[in-house]
Amino acid sequence: MRKKHRVVVVALGGNALIKPGETGKLPEQLRNMDNAMKHVAMLVKRGWKLILTHGNGPQVGDILLQNEMSKNAVPPMPLYVCVAESQGEIGYMIQETLYNRLHKLGIDKPIVTVITQVLVDRNDSAFRKPTKPIGPHYLRKSAMPRGWHFMKSKMGFRRVVPSPEPVRIVEADAIRKIMDKAIVIACGGGGVPVVRGRGEKGLVGIDAVIDKDLTAGKLAEIVKADMLIILTDVDAVELNYGKPNQRKLKRVGLSEIKKYYEEGHFAEGSMGPKVEAAMRFLEKDPKNRNKRKVIITSFDLLEKAIEDKAGTIIVR
Amino acid sequence: MRKKHRVVVVALGGNALIKPGETGKLPEQLRNMDNAMKHVAMLVKRGWKLILTHGNGPQVGDILLQNEMSKNAVPPMPLYVCVAESQGEIGYMIQETLYNRLHKLGIDKPIVTVITQVLVDRNDSAFRKPTKPIGPHYLRKSAMPRGWHFMKSKMGFRRVVPSPEPVRIVEADAIRKIMDKAIVIACGGGGVPVVRGRGEKGLVGIDAVIDKDLTAGKLAEIVKADMLIILTDVDAVELNYGKPNQRKLKRVGLSEIKKYYEEGHFAEGSMGPKVEAAMRFLEKDPKNRNKRKVIITSFDLLEKAIEDKAGTIIVR
Repeated sequence: MRKKHRVVVVALGGNALIKPGETGKLPEQLRNMDNAMKHVAMLVKRGWKLILTHGNGPQVGDILLQNEMSKNAVPPMPLYVCVAESQGEIGYMIQETLYNRLHKLGIDKPIVTVITQVLVDRNDSAFRKPTKPIGPHYLRKSAMPRGWHFMKSKMGFRRVVPSPEPVRIVEADAIRKIMDKAIVIACGGGGVPVVRGRGEKGLVGIDAVIDKDLTAGKLAEIVKADMLIILTDVDAVELNYGKPNQRKLKRVGLSEIKKYYEEGHFAEGSMGPKVEAAMRFLEKDPKNRNKRKVIITSFDLLEKAIEDKAGTIIVR
Repeated sequence: MRKKHRVVVVALGGNALIKPGETGKLPEQLRNMDNAMKHVAMLVKRGWKLILTHGNGPQVGDILLQNEMSKNAVPPMPLYVCVAESQGEIGYMIQETLYNRLHKLGIDKPIVTVITQVLVDRNDSAFRKPTKPIGPHYLRKSAMPRGWHFMKSKMGFRRVVPSPEPVRIVEADAIRKIMDKAIVIACGGGGVPVVRGRGEKGLVGIDAVIDKDLTAGKLAEIVKADMLIILTDVDAVELNYGKPNQRKLKRVGLSEIKKYYEEGHFAEGSMGPKVEAAMRFLEKDPKNRNKRKVIITSFDLLEKAIEDKAGTIIVR
């Protein structure tokens, strides 16, 4: 079966680059990224038009901690600028490791990281109830800057920020125009959150975290992807996760997984948004019924999953 | 005179975003950037195809200091990854402020920041003699990681890194393909320096600083620019700078400025590389003689300089 020129969006978990027990040193992250790109490069070899996106949890956490610890010497940057920094950082790691992997396969294709802003609605209910913990743990509340929302954490207190819906990818047009010419890396960390400023102000950054899987779904929509692949640290979506009757979902239809979703099988902030992104992507496919596909699996099973031999495959 | 579809590369000084006496807080940087983009947006309005590049001196200095001050909690990233972070940071600031300025002019054009690697030669003589001071000042030599080269500074010691020649812009192909579709921001901070790894390794990052003006010249070459504009904090190139007989250069030919260059009128690491970038760009124009132009001026004089009424204009 020829799959040439079909479009795939691949979303990489930020956690997959800094694994449990690892410190996040660069050589570790590059090794993990290289392993991921070994598999991703095969998609390019098979003729897929590739668009990549990625999480940034541990990386932006490190940048926030660096900002915090040096705040008496260097003016700390707000979260949304730190997200832009992490897009540059991780984008560079992907560009280099993917370039090298493709080079070994004899493929010479331009790869570009696009710094991406994602518009959110300042009336999104998330802004009234921040829920997403971010950055370092603080021993005392008084050590936090005024005005932050916080939650209690096992080590004291932790900042929480809103997690609003992605409304529009500001660079959508650019991404669509580039994807014919280059492999595109975009929307890192869910995107730099921006809102429409009041009056004449245009776009302005805002401290929030947009779920990277929901943004990945949006990205897959705007590039009219045929396939969305969400790579994470588990092999497949599981029902009754952590219970004795836990079981892997193999091939599943939209209405079936919707039922499981509503029954509460998938954890918020973890498998939940992945499944939600999958459902939205499949639902928004009115003309092209039954041709879209979502795969949720781990890096190492990517190639098997493409052949329907591993992972969770969700279709309409 | 119609200038439609002609190509201009604009290089912004990193210092111009954090001015003397300023702390580098985000609102200051955004205000300075917005002022720069007010002028740059006019080039787009006049029909120029725009490619932007920028310095990152103060910004990457801040990121290095953040890395240093938190090194016991967060594994510090090497300089070349910090450069990638600063490309994300500054790229975002340019994207947002330029988008807003164009929006006010009724112009809706995609703008993309491309994270850019620049290949350098590991046999470049710069690697035998690091000269470029970078990052924080250290009170004691022993406070520096082993293996760093350093110089004495007024506050103690400071790391110096090599400043090799830009050999090739790794993302050149991508940039050329995108520039017809979008305003491109690329090669920030002179680019993330990479060398060819030994054996099978492909490209690997290396700690160095590529002069941003020399890279800007290279960028102007690869996109076959008609005009290169270097924006800095002085209004024009001066002869006998700082002496009683100091005088501004207005319109000057290649051979004339070459003579001044060889006479040592232009300071190393400051006006020197700007003039050198200009000369190289003009020299590498064999087919298109006398059509290329370089402008060196300050942000506020950009529009006047375009009309030959301010700044230094260098032609062949």
